[in-house]
Amino acid sequence: MSLSSWPTGSAICFGGDYNPEQWPREVWDEDVALMREAGVNLVSVGIFSWAMLEVREGEFDFAWLDGLLDLLHRNGIAVDLGTPTASPPAWFFAAYPQARVVAKDGTVQGFGSRGMASPSSPEYRRAATRVAGKLAERYGSHPAVVMWHVHNEYGAPVGEDFSAAAGTAFREWLRTRYGSLDALNAAWGTAFWGQRYVEWEHVGLPSATPSVANPAQRLDFARFTDHQLRACFLAERDAIRAHATQPVTTNFMANECPTTDLFAWAREVDVVSNDHYLTAADERGHVGLALAADLTRSVAGGRPWILMEHSTSAVNWQPRNVAKRAGEMARNSLSHLARGADGILFFQWRASRSGAEKFHSAMVPHAGTGSRVWREVVALGAALERLAPVRGSRVEADVAVLWDTESFWAQDLEWRPSVDVQHRERVRAYYERLWRDGRTVDFVEPSQDLSAYRLVVAPASYLLRERDAANLTRFVEQGGTLLVSFFSAIVDEHDAVHAGGFLAPLREVLGVAVEEFLPLRAGETTRVAWAPAGVAARTLVADVWQDDLVVDGAEVVGTHLDGPAAGGAAITRHAYGAGTAWYVSTRLDVDALEPVLEQVYADAGLAPTGLPQGVEVVTRHGEDADFVVAINHTSEDVKLALGDGQELLGATAVAGTLDLPSGSVVVLRTAPRRPGGDGRP
Amino acid sequence: MSLSSWPTGSAICFGGDYNPEQWPREVWDEDVALMREAGVNLVSVGIFSWAMLEVREGEFDFAWLDGLLDLLHRNGIAVDLGTPTASPPAWFFAAYPQARVVAKDGTVQGFGSRGMASPSSPEYRRAATRVAGKLAERYGSHPAVVMWHVHNEYGAPVGEDFSAAAGTAFREWLRTRYGSLDALNAAWGTAFWGQRYVEWEHVGLPSATPSVANPAQRLDFARFTDHQLRACFLAERDAIRAHATQPVTTNFMANECPTTDLFAWAREVDVVSNDHYLTAADERGHVGLALAADLTRSVAGGRPWILMEHSTSAVNWQPRNVAKRAGEMARNSLSHLARGADGILFFQWRASRSGAEKFHSAMVPHAGTGSRVWREVVALGAALERLAPVRGSRVEADVAVLWDTESFWAQDLEWRPSVDVQHRERVRAYYERLWRDGRTVDFVEPSQDLSAYRLVVAPASYLLRERDAANLTRFVEQGGTLLVSFFSAIVDEHDAVHAGGFLAPLREVLGVAVEEFLPLRAGETTRVAWAPAGVAARTLVADVWQDDLVVDGAEVVGTHLDGPAAGGAAITRHAYGAGTAWYVSTRLDVDALEPVLEQVYADAGLAPTGLPQGVEVVTRHGEDADFVVAINHTSEDVKLALGDGQELLGATAVAGTLDLPSGSVVVLRTAPRRPGGDGRP
Amino acid sequence: MSLSSWPTGSAICFGGDYNPEQWPREVWDEDVALMREAGVNLVSVGIFSWAMLEVREGEFDFAWLDGLLDLLHRNGIAVDLGTPTASPPAWFFAAYPQARVVAKDGTVQGFGSRGMASPSSPEYRRAATRVAGKLAERYGSHPAVVMWHVHNEYGAPVGEDFSAAAGTAFREWLRTRYGSLDALNAAWGTAFWGQRYVEWEHVGLPSATPSVANPAQRLDFARFTDHQLRACFLAERDAIRAHATQPVTTNFMANECPTTDLFAWAREVDVVSNDHYLTAADERGHVGLALAADLTRSVAGGRPWILMEHSTSAVNWQPRNVAKRAGEMARNSLSHLARGADGILFFQWRASRSGAEKFHSAMVPHAGTGSRVWREVVALGAALERLAPVRGSRVEADVAVLWDTESFWAQDLEWRPSVDVQHRERVRAYYERLWRDGRTVDFVEPSQDLSAYRLVVAPASYLLRERDAANLTRFVEQGGTLLVSFFSAIVDEHDAVHAGGFLAPLREVLGVAVEEFLPLRAGETTRVAWAPAGVAARTLVADVWQDDLVVDGAEVVGTHLDGPAAGGAAITRHAYGAGTAWYVSTRLDVDALEPVLEQVYADAGLAPTGLPQGVEVVTRHGEDADFVVAINHTSEDVKLALGDGQELLGATAVAGTLDLPSGSVVVLRTAPRRPGGDGRP
Repeated sequence: MSLSSWPTGSAICFGGDYNPEQWPREVWDEDVALMREAGVNLVSVGIFSWAMLEVREGEFDFAWLDGLLDLLHRNGIAVDLGTPTASPPAWFFAAYPQARVVAKDGTVQGFGSRGMASPSSPEYRRAATRVAGKLAERYGSHPAVVMWHVHNEYGAPVGEDFSAAAGTAFREWLRTRYGSLDALNAAWGTAFWGQRYVEWEHVGLPSATPSVANPAQRLDFARFTDHQLRACFLAERDAIRAHATQPVTTNFMANECPTTDLFAWAREVDVVSNDHYLTAADERGHVGLALAADLTRSVAGGRPWILMEHSTSAVNWQPRNVAKRAGEMARNSLSHLARGADGILFFQWRASRSGAEKFHSAMVPHAGTGSRVWREVVALGAALERLAPVRGSRVEADVAVLWDTESFWAQDLEWRPSVDVQHRERVRAYYERLWRDGRTVDFVEPSQDLSAYRLVVAPASYLLRERDAANLTRFVEQGGTLLVSFFSAIVDEHDAVHAGGFLAPLREVLGVAVEEFLPLRAGETTRVAWAPAGVAARTLVADVWQDDLVVDGAEVVGTHLDGPAAGGAAITRHAYGAGTAWYVSTRLDVDALEPVLEQVYADAGLAPTGLPQGVEVVTRHGEDADFVVAINHTSEDVKLALGDGQELLGATAVAGTLDLPSGSVVVLRTAPRRPGGDGRP
Repeated sequence: MSLSSWPTGSAICFGGDYNPEQWPREVWDEDVALMREAGVNLVSVGIFSWAMLEVREGEFDFAWLDGLLDLLHRNGIAVDLGTPTASPPAWFFAAYPQARVVAKDGTVQGFGSRGMASPSSPEYRRAATRVAGKLAERYGSHPAVVMWHVHNEYGAPVGEDFSAAAGTAFREWLRTRYGSLDALNAAWGTAFWGQRYVEWEHVGLPSATPSVANPAQRLDFARFTDHQLRACFLAERDAIRAHATQPVTTNFMANECPTTDLFAWAREVDVVSNDHYLTAADERGHVGLALAADLTRSVAGGRPWILMEHSTSAVNWQPRNVAKRAGEMARNSLSHLARGADGILFFQWRASRSGAEKFHSAMVPHAGTGSRVWREVVALGAALERLAPVRGSRVEADVAVLWDTESFWAQDLEWRPSVDVQHRERVRAYYERLWRDGRTVDFVEPSQDLSAYRLVVAPASYLLRERDAANLTRFVEQGGTLLVSFFSAIVDEHDAVHAGGFLAPLREVLGVAVEEFLPLRAGETTRVAWAPAGVAARTLVADVWQDDLVVDGAEVVGTHLDGPAAGGAAITRHAYGAGTAWYVSTRLDVDALEPVLEQVYADAGLAPTGLPQGVEVVTRHGEDADFVVAINHTSEDVKLALGDGQELLGATAVAGTLDLPSGSVVVLRTAPRRPGGDGRP
Repeated sequence: MSLSSWPTGSAICFGGDYNPEQWPREVWDEDVALMREAGVNLVSVGIFSWAMLEVREGEFDFAWLDGLLDLLHRNGIAVDLGTPTASPPAWFFAAYPQARVVAKDGTVQGFGSRGMASPSSPEYRRAATRVAGKLAERYGSHPAVVMWHVHNEYGAPVGEDFSAAAGTAFREWLRTRYGSLDALNAAWGTAFWGQRYVEWEHVGLPSATPSVANPAQRLDFARFTDHQLRACFLAERDAIRAHATQPVTTNFMANECPTTDLFAWAREVDVVSNDHYLTAADERGHVGLALAADLTRSVAGGRPWILMEHSTSAVNWQPRNVAKRAGEMARNSLSHLARGADGILFFQWRASRSGAEKFHSAMVPHAGTGSRVWREVVALGAALERLAPVRGSRVEADVAVLWDTESFWAQDLEWRPSVDVQHRERVRAYYERLWRDGRTVDFVEPSQDLSAYRLVVAPASYLLRERDAANLTRFVEQGGTLLVSFFSAIVDEHDAVHAGGFLAPLREVLGVAVEEFLPLRAGETTRVAWAPAGVAARTLVADVWQDDLVVDGAEVVGTHLDGPAAGGAAITRHAYGAGTAWYVSTRLDVDALEPVLEQVYADAGLAPTGLPQGVEVVTRHGEDADFVVAINHTSEDVKLALGDGQELLGATAVAGTLDLPSGSVVVLRTAPRRPGGDGRP
């Protein structure tokens, strides 16, 4: 998309979900006046309005929406128009009870909540595309409408569906995938436990079973679930495109929704958008935010994206919904912007008085406009206006972290060697180490061209296809630095252990072989003697896992001091081709990873950033300027030397160092370090 | 009810559930002889006898019951005759399988346990009223029968029912409540998540749903559940009254059964009765007992009530069924009596050899009459005979604690700001503080006339109607002292946030506004600087919650030293009209509440009681005497000055102080402090 | 069975489950070559091959199995031929969906896992016996086949079944058991909670109910479940015997499968076989192994048995699958052998690349033959060859531990006095005490002749029939020593409390009565003053339980210092007849039991063994030699004096002491202490 086709033109999008159907008409006028006060330029409308738009089956009422869009347009507020298909009306479920989602144990998920229907239901597919098409037909040329927002958070609140319709669709999907039952029997390894199929009609969903279900069937069911959800999106998108030309998006939940493979989804949308909420229990939630933002930019292929939902303060659906404090909303928003977001929107405009989410914060909170939250919303709107020059600039990264949704699906299945090995935990730990070290990170699929990166980290590549392992090997051979964490390259795409054993496809590049897994008992910790050449020796504390490692060419830089692998290699480094490959065979926490990554950076030619702990700095590269965003998450004021230029938020000139008080953000416009940027549109 | 119509006349009721159908006929004679030895004057009979009375549908066999009632009557033991409808027979469920209770996830609750049927089943209603009517017809004039005991513990073991019959009845109940779908849509806020209804037939139960169900629907379902259970009671009661004139009761489970609103139930019974069992895991279970007893008296409007069931020692259905030790049963019994019970009964007379409750203690335990338990049962019977003069006297309280079952239902719904905020915990904490300080407490509904009280405490008024807030405001205005705990006055009767925001209806009287909730993380503690004028400053430890509090007229007497509200007001005091209103915006435990309540008492004009810690003293006021019950729960002997008079248990005269050895109880008859009592019948 | 009819003749069986259908044909040749290298002489074949053998209903394909058996036979490897009925094919469940197992809550357990069918399904019974019969018909005279392996681990992964077929069969089973409804009503105590039955058709399964189901019904359902599983086995066994004469076995899961009563099962098999897996979380898993092995030998009546499955290293289905380390597999294997196993087999020969158990270790691991595991497998094969002389020798024990599966079933029901009282825990604690003290133990049913033992320990005899109590009483009277732990002799076979109260049937022999249970609160500990005559006084720490104990003839040797029974008797000793009976009324851990058992041994005339802690020594008695197996589980080398003779593994002569290095095993052939052994075949 060219800059000129951005939904809000040259402005950064600012606004939120707007659900005026919850309020009397007189409130609408107040809303619009407040939106203007806050600088809102984009609202998402109609996301849960199916029952208001199609009152009974086939009986449409657009009058209220006509009026609403006109009102917004008159006030200069653009509309991201939702299709309401995330929550079909009561009449739909009454007419088509077979379209209800069924849980694994057979429990039917009824109406009265956020009412997702079965993504495999033909009745749902028909009804959803009809209402989407009707909306596009009516509003495809409405001047307020600048973008289409299909559905809402595909995969939430439920993704997997065990209905009869899903069973039928699963068989069809498998027939297409495998062609023959012989191929399916081979892929699923049905010789184990006597599961061989002789008729397609006998193949079913992995519903409740006496023991664990076939893992390859489970993995295919995860692929199927993602496919069915995406098929729903594609059907709606195409129904819209038949009548409208505005870009189409759907809001992702990066790193939070296990049923969608966002790299695949991002290829189907015109603009990537994402929802992000802090995990209240996480005292370093801003690191999780950065991870989600980097992931969103990565699935978008580096293109600018929209933060479609986040919260002004607390949410309502976590066990303890910690509120944000002064300045936190701005720090969150500008961290997203630093990592590529060209739109900052909230759920939702005005806090609901009723319903399941009444305790969710909003731009206009229950306390009204006399509140801290409202004042900060207005200030954020003003700040984003000042940041308009950032629009369209790009983030570039030297470091990539592997992200393979299929690997995560496979690792999440039952009966893995240790319940303590969790891909989310490992990805977060390595990401947080990189974050603390000031590294800007892309997430990449293992099949991607990696030549743009100096360092690739693979924290959780349990499922790794041979051809992807070859891609990693080639990367090292050609001079790259690779770090692989334990429990990687174990199985192929059918969750079958690689011929040659664990880690076999990476054995050559890593110079080690895994003879056996040595999981530790609950709570057990071990020590690693860390002693690479030329570095002061240290002892690192580890837990959860050890390998019985056979060193075959690699240099041992860390040795287990205790545990079942006592005396054996814990961390290895292998010069291979023009590059270097590291293997870390135990679980080190973020602190213990510090000295290891320090050496890895040296191999990768990455100089220390010298940033104070807790200060986040990310650069966006524009066509004729760079924009350095710096965020101080600490309780101390700091000084930074980020170059000379213009600080955009305060509109002050900077030469030499700048002050970054505790909790504050600066955006420094400097001369581009790479003149002309990266030349991408 | 006048004293003369009390089931056991001028005597305090003493006895228990009697289930002779579990024993051969020869044991009955031994039972009756032992009952006479123990002074038993009332037994509950027939509670689980449906299968013995109506052997097949419509085929009644009363012969054994005729004989039993005659035997009891001949021995001077009165009968509280049960209707057996808490456990329909096997033939009932075989004939009417649709009458089985269905769980939220659709699991059908079958026969073979304590077999509650669906309260909404027409077949059950018909069968239950038929058997109740038949019993009343046959025994309405039997001289042994002095009371009717309808059903057993309505709401246990299951209250909520998701059967098809419940769905039909729920729609009917909603039609009656709301009149129109527009009203229902408004009350339930169905504009949120697109839940609008256009046909009554589409409205259903809050069964399993993909995400949380509509909270207003859930709240109405709680009201409906209570209503259906009560409708069952009313139908049986009226079937009895068609043939009989004895008082009708049903045994409550005060503070233990979340599906019944006891204030509403108490209006429908002739005599309030209650079941109470200690919580074994609670080392101060006697405080929970006192709470339940005060609540029972409160729902009874102050009238004497019957403790229909408690245990001589351990129960069998808790994780660890701690036994009572010597003297504990007597202390428990007389604490109930002190708080208004004029009857002390047990489950059950003789321990069952078979069945699910064989490990429940009884008046005649498995160990027989050579046991400690039996000796204490006999001693208790004798003590209650000596306490006959107490019969009919009343308890009076200066302090009231708000109790609103609807508020509790609403607070228990999903997605509240913090899972750590629990109404039961807060009610208990404030109650225990009052208990330790020697305050006698009534529980009151928030709509009640409060003018009789000096102090009203609102520990958990999450749902507070505007008119009830006005009642509290008026109470303060007229000179009362009010203490409100955090997370109060948040929503109206439809679980909708009050216009104006959190706490809005109490903002004027409290002189504070809540801008935002600030829940704390799990395990986090904070400190409050407690420094009201004229009092030595202290630091109190708090947890779970803070408010972002805006002080608007109140005096700040406690300030947060840390946490998200650091520096903000934690505890406030507001002089309003002729009274004072306190707000405590964080969670203080029973110890930390001590200095706060000390100041609150001073505002309320309540002088210190000077009682030793762990000594419980409650006064019952008779027409021409007061009865001071003192119970020593400690391991130390104490001396008390309770006035001059006659100690009834030991039949000794007291002048000045009396001795209260560790573990013992005294009942002192003194001259009435308020001559003539309160004049109530 | 005579030695000559042992499946592998004079050799100890060595091998594992062999599932070549998971591999291409060329791997089979490699497999057989490796088997020869390792000394494998027996493999179990066809256990999960139904779908390969009966491709469609009634359509059999034996060609691949013909070839496989011929290949094995040509290579001198005998076959334990499985019936594949533990996992029916997809076509079976498609044709007979009513044969699926149904869970208690009604969830249907579908296909796609380890597919157990309802043991009560007539369709399953018919199909299972048909395929078993076909196999026997075809291979009954095949020279490779030396044993039949019916089904697999009856009771796993599911035992209980709540299908309609189970309901019908349960009623039939009850009719046979009770004859009349009156007898059933009496046995089940249906007078409690009004559960009386008047029609057989109304009697059902203990499916989901509003509160707990009738415990006697639950207990009968456990008996029925065991009966139905066994009926499946008997039907297959008899179908085989119609065509074949080789011995028939089925693999038990001693101490791991709650739904089978192995004493009853062992009477029906020709050779007892057992599966055993270490509990990874248990750091003393080798004690659990010894328990399971002793139990297996005990149910086999002392006859040699086969360890049908264990693992070379980690399993895959525990939360953390800890791998075995060097030497551990050999120690495990030889501990089984020491306790009577004459066959050591593994699950499985070659690690599966696909399916639910791909992370289960195997004889040929994923890492191949260059691995530690393979080297140890080969070494074990060689060791077992050297141990051939041990074949057929017997273990003898002075000490017996009571094992009554019905008692365990009953104790596991709901609403027992304390959730902390667990029979598995108590059996293990007493067993581990005996293990540490070097005692070889038999498990015995309480009805068995006990005269061969000096000491009988009853750790968990909650359900104890009067006639079995009389058996124990007689044992003491005649000179035996008995130790009874608390919560014993509480109920009869119908889970009804004994007339006379708790412990009544053992009151005379123990000289104590239990007036009341006094369970402790969670985490509460108490102290026992241990002071038997002539022994230095000690304080023992206890928890979970106390009794209110009435001493009636016994000597008090331990007194509660605190807790609800403070001052009361904790441990008693009663001289009765020619013997002594001990009662331990609280929970002592393995350490605290040490001084108690020391006195008990003295009463039983059992001299100290003098073994170092952690060294396991067991003797097998042959016709003309004894074989002393000694295993050092510690990290220290020790010296032992086990007598003079020949060490078989190292083939060295021993005179005086021998060295037992850390982690090692020796098998010493000595002259028989009891010349001629016990004379059993």
